[in-house]
Amino acid sequence: MESLSVALGSRSYPIHIGAGILGTSALYTPYLAGSAAIVTNEVVAPLYLDRVRQALESAGARVTRIVVPDGEQAKGWQTLERVFDALLAARCGRDTLLVALGGGVVGDLAGFAAAVYQRGIAFVQVPTTLLAQVDSSVGGKTAINHPRGKNMIGAFHQPRAVIADLATLDTLPERELRAGLAEVIKHGAALDRAFFGWLEQNIEKLLARERGALTHAVRRSCELKAAIVAADEREAGPRALLNLGHTFAHAIEAGSGYGAWLHGEAVAAGMVMAAELSRLLKLIGSDDVARVRTLISRAGLPVKGPPLALDEMLALMAVDKKAAKGELRFVLLERLGSASMRGGVDEPLVRAAIVAAAQ
Amino acid sequence: MESLSVALGSRSYPIHIGAGILGTSALYTPYLAGSAAIVTNEVVAPLYLDRVRQALESAGARVTRIVVPDGEQAKGWQTLERVFDALLAARCGRDTLLVALGGGVVGDLAGFAAAVYQRGIAFVQVPTTLLAQVDSSVGGKTAINHPRGKNMIGAFHQPRAVIADLATLDTLPERELRAGLAEVIKHGAALDRAFFGWLEQNIEKLLARERGALTHAVRRSCELKAAIVAADEREAGPRALLNLGHTFAHAIEAGSGYGAWLHGEAVAAGMVMAAELSRLLKLIGSDDVARVRTLISRAGLPVKGPPLALDEMLALMAVDKKAAKGELRFVLLERLGSASMRGGVDEPLVRAAIVAAAQ
Repeated sequence: MESLSVALGSRSYPIHIGAGILGTSALYTPYLAGSAAIVTNEVVAPLYLDRVRQALESAGARVTRIVVPDGEQAKGWQTLERVFDALLAARCGRDTLLVALGGGVVGDLAGFAAAVYQRGIAFVQVPTTLLAQVDSSVGGKTAINHPRGKNMIGAFHQPRAVIADLATLDTLPERELRAGLAEVIKHGAALDRAFFGWLEQNIEKLLARERGALTHAVRRSCELKAAIVAADEREAGPRALLNLGHTFAHAIEAGSGYGAWLHGEAVAAGMVMAAELSRLLKLIGSDDVARVRTLISRAGLPVKGPPLALDEMLALMAVDKKAAKGELRFVLLERLGSASMRGGVDEPLVRAAIVAAAQ
Repeated sequence: MESLSVALGSRSYPIHIGAGILGTSALYTPYLAGSAAIVTNEVVAPLYLDRVRQALESAGARVTRIVVPDGEQAKGWQTLERVFDALLAARCGRDTLLVALGGGVVGDLAGFAAAVYQRGIAFVQVPTTLLAQVDSSVGGKTAINHPRGKNMIGAFHQPRAVIADLATLDTLPERELRAGLAEVIKHGAALDRAFFGWLEQNIEKLLARERGALTHAVRRSCELKAAIVAADEREAGPRALLNLGHTFAHAIEAGSGYGAWLHGEAVAAGMVMAAELSRLLKLIGSDDVARVRTLISRAGLPVKGPPLALDEMLALMAVDKKAAKGELRFVLLERLGSASMRGGVDEPLVRAAIVAAAQ
């Protein structure tokens, strides 16, 4: 097992990475004060719930189990209410440790529940998808969706620890593995040119789930994200660079109905659009766009969006959180491995980028 | 106008106290970055909404007005959803300033909306009731109710400023003035024996709304609360002392159906129960209990709870947030003007205190 740290002063926490570690009682013990609640979904529960429950119980905790439906559709108020109901029915107090066991949806939902239940309780992330291990479980962003926009209601609430068990990736459906690779590629494209090059050389090993390759990809992604989060916890500056492709991706997800596209798939297509927009703004050349497009394609991910009208895409982007002061803002590539936030992008160029991605 | 400060490092903020100040544009200007949204209720809107809107517009802001129903029943998810809908429909971004214009319900609801809308936006409290001016608008506690318990879902989210306009108290219904006095009395009983004595001498002036007496009561309450909040923002320790009477009060409110009792009324009766419990634990004498009971009675506030079965009261208290590790915890009076938190109180004594309060 390897451990990294997210350096946030009194809110610093470890990320543990290893195979078969989610049942290790000692990883939870420091955060237990009596009772615990595990939030997971119907797919993950039969696989790992008992092992996590046993780990908590052998540390002396009274454990409440809360199983929510699978899928992005579950990331709304209705499911959140079920979590609150179960916590209150079990008389969970402020000293309860909430354990989020699952992918990005469970992590975002359970993390937000922990952020606002009795004005905030402690929680631990146990991500069981590649996407959650390399991205969503680290950094304290929690949220639920609103019919008018994804992740519109949420909070910054840092976990006490992240326990990334690589063995859970063995059971991950192919499509979700690929969706997770989209975020890994994003980290390379936006932050680390050398890592992007490593991914170009190892994408087949990752798709074949070679443990050594996956370990490096998860660790490097977590390192990159931890450094960004430590520098900018609440996304006032550099942290926004992690949103490469996300302005487009949120529109794709909202326009297709939540759940039709996996988040990683939308980010993949969104990254190609962002790369094309960067090219149209003369920041990068067509060779770099081609590298992004090719790697995404080799990972089995979509390089173009769904058949949405351009006007609809633009309207959906306008409501995006990053549309500060009414202007469209984008994370763009300055070069491969280096991104920046730019505002005041002309709408015709945005349209042209979406069209170019679809070519 | 007088101004105090709540000292919370980078999150410090001023409390402005004065008559006729809610329309002063300069008090909002430092926090405006383009757009603003005012959340208020149907009763307050006709009285003050236009003046606040004009103050914001003359500072150059685009203003969205959101009017919610009046009353404790509105402090739930359904109303919160209306606020989110209106903010999203108006395309309010992360730079929006939310202004909470109203009493405790509007402040708690709008404050929580600000805490979680797009993971947190800035807000200003403009309290228009005595209760909100002396208590709920200061300190960053925000929340909505859950059918299983009051304030169960919430966040700590400090306002950028509190603008307490004493002129709004002129239009306050008598019953709400009294409910606000309950929290003023609480500050004296729990924290400041001299202030409690001052209240005993000036309660008639306060009930007659003499501006000088009200100014002193609001300022001293805000000073006491600001000091406590600065020492303990997230209620890990001394801040809990502000909850004198609240374990009983929450049970009274939940058992009567939210809204039947005003929060201040429940706190008043809860304080008498807490005083009786302190006496049964031999912390204070019956003379101090009598002073608490008499002052509350002179303020026109209830000294005993609603006709709830003792078992129901106890069951409702057990789910309270302060029931840490399954044991009942209470804020008790060590002497008049000094409180402490105590756990492990025997249930028969709690029952006896509720009965004694009703004598």
